[in-house]
Amino acid sequence: MAQSPPRNHRATVELRRGELTELCERALLVSGASPAQATVLAAATAEAELLGRRPVGVSHLVDYVDGFRNGRIAPSSPSLERRTAVISTVDCRGGLAQHGFDVALPGLCARATEHGLSVAALRHCFTAGELDYYIRRLNRRGLMGLACANSPALVTVAGARGPLLGSNPLAFGVPLPHGRRLAFDQASSATAWVAVREAAMRDEPIPTSWAVDNLGAPTTSAEAALAGALLPFGGYKGGNIALLVEVLATLSGGLFSVDAPPFNHGATSPSVGVVVVAVSVDALDPGYLSRLDAQLDRWKADYGANPDVWTAHHEAASCLMSPDLYEQLRSLATAEG
Amino acid sequence: MAQSPPRNHRATVELRRGELTELCERALLVSGASPAQATVLAAATAEAELLGRRPVGVSHLVDYVDGFRNGRIAPSSPSLERRTAVISTVDCRGGLAQHGFDVALPGLCARATEHGLSVAALRHCFTAGELDYYIRRLNRRGLMGLACANSPALVTVAGARGPLLGSNPLAFGVPLPHGRRLAFDQASSATAWVAVREAAMRDEPIPTSWAVDNLGAPTTSAEAALAGALLPFGGYKGGNIALLVEVLATLSGGLFSVDAPPFNHGATSPSVGVVVVAVSVDALDPGYLSRLDAQLDRWKADYGANPDVWTAHHEAASCLMSPDLYEQLRSLATAEG
Repeated sequence: MAQSPPRNHRATVELRRGELTELCERALLVSGASPAQATVLAAATAEAELLGRRPVGVSHLVDYVDGFRNGRIAPSSPSLERRTAVISTVDCRGGLAQHGFDVALPGLCARATEHGLSVAALRHCFTAGELDYYIRRLNRRGLMGLACANSPALVTVAGARGPLLGSNPLAFGVPLPHGRRLAFDQASSATAWVAVREAAMRDEPIPTSWAVDNLGAPTTSAEAALAGALLPFGGYKGGNIALLVEVLATLSGGLFSVDAPPFNHGATSPSVGVVVVAVSVDALDPGYLSRLDAQLDRWKADYGANPDVWTAHHEAASCLMSPDLYEQLRSLATAEG
Repeated sequence: MAQSPPRNHRATVELRRGELTELCERALLVSGASPAQATVLAAATAEAELLGRRPVGVSHLVDYVDGFRNGRIAPSSPSLERRTAVISTVDCRGGLAQHGFDVALPGLCARATEHGLSVAALRHCFTAGELDYYIRRLNRRGLMGLACANSPALVTVAGARGPLLGSNPLAFGVPLPHGRRLAFDQASSATAWVAVREAAMRDEPIPTSWAVDNLGAPTTSAEAALAGALLPFGGYKGGNIALLVEVLATLSGGLFSVDAPPFNHGATSPSVGVVVVAVSVDALDPGYLSRLDAQLDRWKADYGANPDVWTAHHEAASCLMSPDLYEQLRSLATAEG
């Protein structure tokens, strides 16, 4: 008598950093990315995956590949513009924010080290991907970082009938002694749009704090929410944070969220903005980082707090991937345009 | 037959800016403030009152007067330290944050205009008062501003058993054409501590989103909440904003919130910190402010949003005050030490 195959008859696939990065890079090159773009984005994608941040890892690379294939991401080189002693801007020309940041990074770090503070503002780029990626690169160089990015409109604020601002993430990170980092990276929406889409696919209700329908009324229907708008986290105060991010991210000329074409279909760049602030904490107080490090330990020992929510960022040497996603990645990496 | 007096037998008192400012100034001088401190704080207090922001107007001045009388606020002069081309720090020496900012302002504005960006970080000051005050002074000079202040611990985050961070306000403001401002000023707590105290005095329940009891459990008892801790707005994401504010505000050496003595009793300065960032938007994009201004009108016309929540800041020529508060102010202004 034939047995039915076990439900998990295929094991998950383990990929080490080298192979993972190479597959991502090949998938990008095949889809039309320039070599420089492929190198930067493959490294960023692998890093997110190895940190366990799957929604911004390989599964998000699929959006980038589709973006290159359909012309939403241009294979262009960013143009760096020095504005003042501490400000540079980058016209990403419809290309990648990660690439624009790569071009701005040496000057950003040099000027932050010299003057204590420096800003790089990117415009006309694809959506930023994992925002902590930008912060990690600063933290590794001993700099504190704050980053804001806007994105096509999904979130209603200030009583708007539909989406007005993007999910507009904000990321912040401080390099502590002994390689520890204090960091967070969060969307300004109460939940991720993909969480609503998943609930809709499973025909499950959603909390009323997540979204409104197309008339602006609270809803528990995920379908109605997809036709409506996400809510900001924390009511009007979270909406204010989304506004702060919108203004800072668009300062150098990125499109406002309501005007940004979608990141997941069509042939036009979202053309949004990203701003990254780098701070050399020593310029303000050479003892600060040690004091903050000790404070985190005190918060734990004396107040029962769990600073791990800000400091646990474990990058594994390899990742486990579902066979489906692995096959998709391999197929993208070998496809001919 | 004698009639009982009408319930509102005393009219509210109308005070114009000049008289209001003078009364505040005299109250401060009598309580031991230096002339410079009295001038700066009286102007700030009158402005908040005329903007209708009563909790940070004259009723808060009473806390400052008590602070000077009991030595929680020192009649000291701030010491300005130039750190780099774009960063200055101010040791407020136990005095007023508003006074420290006053001393830093000319250099802050000059350097923001020259380099596009500048920071003033204050330490060892009394709690900051109305944070939008700092932003308005930048906006009037055509500069965008972001300010963060920490304060004695009231808010639990990261699972702490009790208060770990202050109500840690964040304020942001952009000067738009035609004198319009886009601005907000918000605490990182879900509600103000005074709102919980009022509920306790009226023996009314509070929403579970406001606070926890002394064991960290959600509570609807205002009394239990006063013995416990406030919650951040918007769950852990609001807690992350409180952390961001804590780090930025303490960068130049202000005490962490858990270590800050209370602002409303005792003889020791809270000795907290304030950071103010000034940005010359023209340095990034000379057309930005006009574009943002037009965008606000579009958000209203095309999306049904109400940008008034960010732009309505009407400063009246006079304020209406309760007779009780007016008598208290007059009595403070005439008392002998």
